[in-house]
Amino acid sequence: MITVNIIGSGNVAQHLISVFQQTETIVLQQVFARNSESIAHLIATDKITSLYSNLKPADITIISVTDGAIAEVSEQLPFENQFVIHTSGSTGLEALNNKNRRGVFYPLQTFSKTKKIDFKKVPLCLESENESDYEILEKLGKIVSDKVFKINSEQRQSLHIAAVFSCNFVNHLYLLGKEICDQNQVPFEILMPLIQETADKIKTLSPLEAQTGPAKRNDQKTIEKHLSFLEDENKKTIYELLTQSIQKYNG
Amino acid sequence: MITVNIIGSGNVAQHLISVFQQTETIVLQQVFARNSESIAHLIATDKITSLYSNLKPADITIISVTDGAIAEVSEQLPFENQFVIHTSGSTGLEALNNKNRRGVFYPLQTFSKTKKIDFKKVPLCLESENESDYEILEKLGKIVSDKVFKINSEQRQSLHIAAVFSCNFVNHLYLLGKEICDQNQVPFEILMPLIQETADKIKTLSPLEAQTGPAKRNDQKTIEKHLSFLEDENKKTIYELLTQSIQKYNG
Repeated sequence: MITVNIIGSGNVAQHLISVFQQTETIVLQQVFARNSESIAHLIATDKITSLYSNLKPADITIISVTDGAIAEVSEQLPFENQFVIHTSGSTGLEALNNKNRRGVFYPLQTFSKTKKIDFKKVPLCLESENESDYEILEKLGKIVSDKVFKINSEQRQSLHIAAVFSCNFVNHLYLLGKEICDQNQVPFEILMPLIQETADKIKTLSPLEAQTGPAKRNDQKTIEKHLSFLEDENKKTIYELLTQSIQKYNG
Repeated sequence: MITVNIIGSGNVAQHLISVFQQTETIVLQQVFARNSESIAHLIATDKITSLYSNLKPADITIISVTDGAIAEVSEQLPFENQFVIHTSGSTGLEALNNKNRRGVFYPLQTFSKTKKIDFKKVPLCLESENESDYEILEKLGKIVSDKVFKINSEQRQSLHIAAVFSCNFVNHLYLLGKEICDQNQVPFEILMPLIQETADKIKTLSPLEAQTGPAKRNDQKTIEKHLSFLEDENKKTIYELLTQSIQKYNG
């Protein structure tokens, strides 16, 4: 049995509230939310508080708020020498106030309020100052997910940057592709199987092996045709830069 | 019943040979291959020829060779006024010699020799000079795929460019993400669910709605942290350019 407090009511906090309540071995003790309405559908109202002074120590207190608020919230906690963790990918462990024992529980997935997620498949990146705290953190992680990794703050920072490249930037390239289709009255859905296959392929091939296209083939004629077709300077610059980068790795 | 010739023995040609032979309404009449060994496992050897003069007219003759060879191959065909098509995404219909009636059958998917593809889900972009030829082309397309689109040469060119952005460049961003992970001893597999989810999300949300991350949030502090973490100039430049581009669309 692990008792847990959650501070916060955003996307990640809401997913954690739901997931923890579906288990038998995690007891969600209290949730701190300034605005209780946003989570009233998820948990009994007597467990919700909007006063720090009402919070009681638990085995693990999880701060799931915006990155910029982590330091202040951790300072406000009315107890000391408890195990307190945050859920941020881009914030070091040391952002937490050191009056408590510190750790991190970073679920690496995009959470949207509308789309359901199978939490068992969400990779959890865990870190703690003390080895003894890591044990309970890992226990909590393994109850809710099949993919638990011990990741220190610097590694987590690198992961977050890798995710910006492989997800945020990727989504933006989908947008540019869609815009090119829209401008030429071509349904973007034609590209969908190719987009899915591109994401699938790297489950079995390394991205270097999976690379195809004019840049990889060094097909200068096609590259020039594409550049002269593109009228938008922004797309041209991105096309040139990513083409050069592909050629660096395949040269 | 549609009779078909295939000229070529590459990836696309091999997939077409397999798929056509699995149907009852398409008769694969002849395959032209310089090197018959590469396709001997796919089709009876008496149907393979390496001499253009052996080729007989069919309802549709499909030229599936490298883009640069399409013009010459179409000139070599020993018949006239037949329906002859190519399978290239980045080549106009007019690359085909005009002694025959011309068309295009462009399957928009990445084909690798090792990975199986469900051809029914491959979008086919079809084009022909004459409306009457389009009918038989569409009939052929619908036998092998559930997704058939009428796409003219300029639209196909735009699609090919959109595919470079949404697939070739996307795969390269996976590579950069993996390199960042490798350099920090973090398993790239941690990012896999996020990568899959990013590709899945745009089935139900537009890429503009699906965008997340520091650039979208205009989180300058995180952006600067990421840039100072990245040592490689190439990655820095790509990070800056794509961040700016996201901000243009979300400004």
